[in-house]
Amino acid sequence: ADIQAGKSKAVTCNACHGNNGISMLPMYPNLAGQKEQYLILQLKAFRDGERKNMLMSPMSTGLSDTDIANLSAYYASLDPAGK
Amino acid sequence: ADIQAGKSKAVTCNACHGNNGISMLPMYPNLAGQKEQYLILQLKAFRDGERKNMLMSPMSTGLSDTDIANLSAYYASLDPAGK
Repeated sequence: ADIQAGKSKAVTCNACHGNNGISMLPMYPNLAGQKEQYLILQLKAFRDGERKNMLMSPMSTGLSDTDIANLSAYYASLDPAGK
Repeated sequence: ADIQAGKSKAVTCNACHGNNGISMLPMYPNLAGQKEQYLILQLKAFRDGERKNMLMSPMSTGLSDTDIANLSAYYASLDPAGK
């Protein structure tokens, strides 16, 4: 996976999940340092309609498997404490 | 919420999510330092059938709102780096 490509793609995600992967609002999860494989599974679940959320369902619709791999690698690479 | 009660209740959860909230396997999410409100929302979604997972759906069935509040406060209180 390409962490730099993930970082570029994450601009949209960062609006809620934070520039450092620590989310802006209490109902949104932190993603920094999260397990890469878990992130891949959840993004695919949102995209494919297995997991439903008013924000994440539409946000994930256009993502390719490569986008998902890159985004997941990027967030997994961030410091879990947000530093 | 009662963090100590959450810690006691978390013994079962720790089998997958780790004693320090850092999960044991790549497909399971870390919970340490996760947003408390997000954890509450997800546990209720699993319990109430809005979010489905082979493990978390049965695991959450017996949880009261108080259990969920305590568990969420406990995991949110842990160091996100697992230290």
